Amino acid sequence: MVAINCDMGEAYSIYRCGDDEGIMPYITVANVACGFHAADPVVMRKTVALAKEHSVKVGAHPSFPDRDGFGRREMKMGRDELTASVIYQVGALAAFLQEEEMPLNHIKPHGALYGLAARDEEVAGAIADAAEVFGVPLMGMANSMHERVWGARDAGFIAEYYTDLDYRDDGSLIITREHAAYDPALAAERSVRAVTENVATSVSGKDIPMRADCICIHSDTPGAVDLAKAVHAALKPYLT
Amino acid sequence: MVAINCDMGEAYSIYRCGDDEGIMPYITVANVACGFHAADPVVMRKTVALAKEHSVKVGAHPSFPDRDGFGRREMKMGRDELTASVIYQVGALAAFLQEEEMPLNHIKPHGALYGLAARDEEVAGAIADAAEVFGVPLMGMANSMHERVWGARDAGFIAEYYTDLDYRDDGSLIITREHAAYDPALAAERSVRAVTENVATSVSGKDIPMRADCICIHSDTPGAVDLAKAVHAALKPYLT
Amino acid sequence: MVAINCDMGEAYSIYRCGDDEGIMPYITVANVACGFHAADPVVMRKTVALAKEHSVKVGAHPSFPDRDGFGRREMKMGRDELTASVIYQVGALAAFLQEEEMPLNHIKPHGALYGLAARDEEVAGAIADAAEVFGVPLMGMANSMHERVWGARDAGFIAEYYTDLDYRDDGSLIITREHAAYDPALAAERSVRAVTENVATSVSGKDIPMRADCICIHSDTPGAVDLAKAVHAALKPYLT
Amino acid sequence: MVAINCDMGEAYSIYRCGDDEGIMPYITVANVACGFHAADPVVMRKTVALAKEHSVKVGAHPSFPDRDGFGRREMKMGRDELTASVIYQVGALAAFLQEEEMPLNHIKPHGALYGLAARDEEVAGAIADAAEVFGVPLMGMANSMHERVWGARDAGFIAEYYTDLDYRDDGSLIITREHAAYDPALAAERSVRAVTENVATSVSGKDIPMRADCICIHSDTPGAVDLAKAVHAALKPYLT
Repeated sequence: MVAINCDMGEAYSIYRCGDDEGIMPYITVANVACGFHAADPVVMRKTVALAKEHSVKVGAHPSFPDRDGFGRREMKMGRDELTASVIYQVGALAAFLQEEEMPLNHIKPHGALYGLAARDEEVAGAIADAAEVFGVPLMGMANSMHERVWGARDAGFIAEYYTDLDYRDDGSLIITREHAAYDPALAAERSVRAVTENVATSVSGKDIPMRADCICIHSDTPGAVDLAKAVHAALKPYLT
Repeated sequence: MVAINCDMGEAYSIYRCGDDEGIMPYITVANVACGFHAADPVVMRKTVALAKEHSVKVGAHPSFPDRDGFGRREMKMGRDELTASVIYQVGALAAFLQEEEMPLNHIKPHGALYGLAARDEEVAGAIADAAEVFGVPLMGMANSMHERVWGARDAGFIAEYYTDLDYRDDGSLIITREHAAYDPALAAERSVRAVTENVATSVSGKDIPMRADCICIHSDTPGAVDLAKAVHAALKPYLT
Repeated sequence: MVAINCDMGEAYSIYRCGDDEGIMPYITVANVACGFHAADPVVMRKTVALAKEHSVKVGAHPSFPDRDGFGRREMKMGRDELTASVIYQVGALAAFLQEEEMPLNHIKPHGALYGLAARDEEVAGAIADAAEVFGVPLMGMANSMHERVWGARDAGFIAEYYTDLDYRDDGSLIITREHAAYDPALAAERSVRAVTENVATSVSGKDIPMRADCICIHSDTPGAVDLAKAVHAALKPYLT
Repeated sequence: MVAINCDMGEAYSIYRCGDDEGIMPYITVANVACGFHAADPVVMRKTVALAKEHSVKVGAHPSFPDRDGFGRREMKMGRDELTASVIYQVGALAAFLQEEEMPLNHIKPHGALYGLAARDEEVAGAIADAAEVFGVPLMGMANSMHERVWGARDAGFIAEYYTDLDYRDDGSLIITREHAAYDPALAAERSVRAVTENVATSVSGKDIPMRADCICIHSDTPGAVDLAKAVHAALKPYLT
């Protein structure tokens, strides 16, 4: 049983971001921005309604408080500050879910918060403390502090495989700011392999072990809708 | 059965505001700021914990998005924009209540949002739409659009009597930015009369009808703690 | 002698807005956002550099402090608050001009601030007080409080004719949030007529008097680059 | 020739911070907050006017964009992002100086930006790039990256001695979030010694070399006004 997730609701004010309407039919889980790196209350409410329309589950996508930097700049926050910030953001999103009578599915941190939590035990722990308030699992990368810290908590951990990015031989993800186009057929094939065999192919062509409870697609990858479509079609037998 | 309410948690960043610790023992309901005119996640979390310690019920105190102006500047927001903004803020607060296993008691809008909703049916309606998501009553002024719009909704209306402000002969409140000191004994006496007889004394000395489900005290009135103490002592037999 | 102006630099964070590179060659004056409704320091700096490259003069485009609402929501600010807010924004922009050794050309308020100043003498006056700090003229609409208040000040008033919008018979502008496409040839023809004869054609086809020191183009009008090109070509003999 | 500096204008919205009126008579240079960690346009304008009244020179006190954290949280900003951010803030302050016909005296970064620039060459360089736009010196700590990077630039470096904090034997400053009270007589005596002999006493009682072009006082040190008074009286013969 596997899910396909994508960051959704990253528009803001008059600004658009990604083709949420185009991608929503091909995912099963949406990570919805909470207003600290992207989105505003109107965008959040619309995105939750759109997810419901497509029977897509919704998780929260909290960030460092950094709208100017789209949450891509690390910040040195105190542990309690960070936990409180995540609780605030997730609570705000949860209210829009309550309106639609949908449960909160999970929490997946955004950008620099995600990246820092993958290396820093205190940061990962601060986020886990927030997740426990809601009793939902955290989504992140296998073979990282995400898995180590979040996997040890009661609420649980969802490992995601990035189908439109590459991995190094050591299993670590090559994170890029601007995502390059990725062949939909290749993404689909690799997604199926990750899901069925728990194996990924590294940039050097080696097989590497890769736990994959969930496939992640980026809406800002060029051709994202086609990629989502291909991955969705290939994974159909395995989707939750 | 009556309650005593006060706005709490209006500190922000390194800045303090009002003596929350001093007042909390003498109130039964706290309206907690939600980060749009005052408070940040850390302040909200601490304020909710402090309220719990004193068995004080907690309502949300949402505002126009105007931290620079402490929510005292009217904004012309679209109806849906306003509803979404209030849902967002109340949801954020509700998460801190969830952490403490406390229910959300009510919603009381802050500052210019409160004032505008007392005159403008659309604004009052937008806030009521948000309150219905949470199924909690709205707190506001009798003899105003608050009572007319919120009183007609299922979730209900809580009328509050301002014990440290004056009323005109027509029953309307004289709102001041900087609150003057108010004699605690007089406030206590008037609070009891409002609660037991539903009558207030206007600035000109006339008796005016005044529904009072709840007594409101301002933490920034000089001598607020003594005033709260006196009102609390006098109302003891009637408190919820 | 006439100018062609356009709002520029309304991108923000990762978000793009309008085709600044495409339009800059066909205008002579840019109104650059100051970070309160759009833009951030990086966007402002780049926009000023782009203007310099095209020998385009730069004015400041300050707004109500309302990034969530793109400055389109009226706010009730105190007169001193508003003046201070405009000084702050214009000063921030002026620093990027200082870096490029360019003078500040003018100030044109944005969105709801522009609209409110066209009707409200206090608001127009508050903005004029800020403009006097910099000794530059204000740009706005003829036949409005802009002209009445700003035209009476020492620093002067620049009347702009909106070539991609329509006017009523009484000379007032029909402001739209989403701009419709406008025939470039018609815009060019009308611009020349406004400039040479000081006459506009109303929606009902009547000739109306229209002072036009400057032609305004919106970068979010569909086909804005072609429209700018046509207007620029037609006005070439009259440009400053 | 020496100066006494203090951070001023750190109030915000309805919140007060420090006794600016009390301290202003005893300093010769004010570092005025620029709205990113503290202050808003109204506070900045009043603070500049207050400085002028007391013939106090004004420098800019820019910060990381972090109002929630009072600029005390490090952020990983790109070099160009940081330079643009500082130019923006200093420009905004410079506009209020222009209104009062006062020159910009210097730039002194705030909080985490100050601390990070003391250790990180890139950060110190980014700030120096901004200072060059204004042609003013940067103020910071001797024996740090401040002195190394800023001292090598044309606009120059002003070394400050913290009279209400302690130094380690190696000349580095012991930075504290909450400042303890400091004996005014001792502060005065040490200030004179720093200025006349370029020597400080470390926490262990050792004499350490200390360049002191300027004496720094914190307005949030308990008893700050008395301390400022004592230091001012003792330094009178040496003040610029």
